[in-house]
Amino acid sequence: MSVITVGTMAFDAIETPFGKVDKIVGGSATYVAYAASNFVQPVQQISIVGYDFPKEEMDSLKKLGVQLEGVEIVPDKKSFFWSGKYHLDMNTRDTLVTDLNVLADFKPVVPDSYQGAEFVMLGNLAPEIQLSVISQLKTRPKLIVMDTMNFWMDIALDGLKQVLQKVDVLLVNDGEARQLSGEFSLVKAARKILTMGPKFLIIKKGEHGALLFHENHVFFAPALPLEEVFDPTGAGDTFAGGFIGHLAKTKDISFENMKTAIIVGSALASFCVEKFGPERIKEITKEDIDRRLAEFVQLVNFDIDLV
Amino acid sequence: MSVITVGTMAFDAIETPFGKVDKIVGGSATYVAYAASNFVQPVQQISIVGYDFPKEEMDSLKKLGVQLEGVEIVPDKKSFFWSGKYHLDMNTRDTLVTDLNVLADFKPVVPDSYQGAEFVMLGNLAPEIQLSVISQLKTRPKLIVMDTMNFWMDIALDGLKQVLQKVDVLLVNDGEARQLSGEFSLVKAARKILTMGPKFLIIKKGEHGALLFHENHVFFAPALPLEEVFDPTGAGDTFAGGFIGHLAKTKDISFENMKTAIIVGSALASFCVEKFGPERIKEITKEDIDRRLAEFVQLVNFDIDLV
Repeated sequence: MSVITVGTMAFDAIETPFGKVDKIVGGSATYVAYAASNFVQPVQQISIVGYDFPKEEMDSLKKLGVQLEGVEIVPDKKSFFWSGKYHLDMNTRDTLVTDLNVLADFKPVVPDSYQGAEFVMLGNLAPEIQLSVISQLKTRPKLIVMDTMNFWMDIALDGLKQVLQKVDVLLVNDGEARQLSGEFSLVKAARKILTMGPKFLIIKKGEHGALLFHENHVFFAPALPLEEVFDPTGAGDTFAGGFIGHLAKTKDISFENMKTAIIVGSALASFCVEKFGPERIKEITKEDIDRRLAEFVQLVNFDIDLV
Repeated sequence: MSVITVGTMAFDAIETPFGKVDKIVGGSATYVAYAASNFVQPVQQISIVGYDFPKEEMDSLKKLGVQLEGVEIVPDKKSFFWSGKYHLDMNTRDTLVTDLNVLADFKPVVPDSYQGAEFVMLGNLAPEIQLSVISQLKTRPKLIVMDTMNFWMDIALDGLKQVLQKVDVLLVNDGEARQLSGEFSLVKAARKILTMGPKFLIIKKGEHGALLFHENHVFFAPALPLEEVFDPTGAGDTFAGGFIGHLAKTKDISFENMKTAIIVGSALASFCVEKFGPERIKEITKEDIDRRLAEFVQLVNFDIDLV
């Protein structure tokens, strides 16, 4: 069972109330790959980097079963660079710098060896890029999950709506769900978005957890209350990687199993925020994940007798 | 099994994005009584009202098994009046008017007939009033639950800390937990507050649910995602009434049963916000409550196989 993940591989500079790093590996596809590789191999990466992206990082991904044939290396340009600063509440941040660099020319090509993948994670990219990847797939995957952001709703809404028609699961945060639907109530927003294409909608609420909507059903997964959220960068992509990784591992895309997948994604994300960048999710073990999943069970488990 | 509830009985004027009422019955003890009376009788009310408080409301409470011997009626003064306006997100509000009226002279007296109550809900009042009620109780109740707010942390912190030494459960919202502890992380805040007296701490996060802390354990109860939050006034008190009502009904104050009690409180609160003031919680039935509890089970229930 393979998973294709399309997204950025980048450098980030991050400042949080707890410290700062000037240059650390980041990018949505990096986080998705590290998270998903805990559950499934191969993870088939589609991305673009410059001459400066570290070979050690590529090697570290390969060791975990991540295939990099779909990662274009541009010899005379720099990798995508993002810099941001988090506010004290860690739920909001200011983008300080966005240097597209290689990303400006990103025209992803799906390698032949990736054809037949049953699970696809479309990271947050321009809708036309997401569409291009879908149209290159010779067989319709079992499940296409799509991430996006408010930026594309502002400047490329028509394209975004086209992609929505072709995907199974949409991942957005609460503000984006409101913007896309024009509804303040997340329940109403979900109902509208579920008419736009996707059969499943996940609304991420950061430290307040995540909601999964499907038909008339709703499921809520909390975030683990943590002593310290050290750096939230990549938490959403790590969540997505854990989510699709669990689905691919179990080959079960029922609503019931998506609930479990969301808990798995939340558990992975809870590790991600403990250190800068992907540092923490690179070092966790199967035992760490199982221990944390057990904490999630404790966190929400209750008994009730309905008469 | 009886429950004493101490708090306000009042009039509110409320404006929300969905409408406004100029005068509706409110007050913490009113909401607690309506909520708790679904589970336990008698609810023994301690409060103070003016000449203008409606006899029909008193009758309606009595019919539900609420005793009013501890409610002082001041013949020449008006009832406490609060007026507020909610912002669009419904999680924040501005207080427009606070007319203390009778509340300025509130010196609660615990009637002899209330002595021996095993459960006590101390509504949000001046710490000295809360202390005075505790000191009048001839036998230590099985469980004392206390609500408070940032206002008392600002102007009566020493008194507040004295009350904390004498209660079992503290109910506050996230901002208040942060203020009381001086910690931003709610996990750290909880650890500090649990050294101040209470053995259990509930942190209410409005539409984002509630956390229960006890020793090294934490439990999370979501709020039900609703199509519309019509009026949040009284939701916290309704939550408290459902919580203590369930505990009193089951006579079980273990951490496990408190989890269930928090779900019950959340279910009651989810009704409260559907109409103005206490209108909705006055009309719900046992069947309504059970149906909603089943929704909570669906909302958070997931299967996971830990290897």
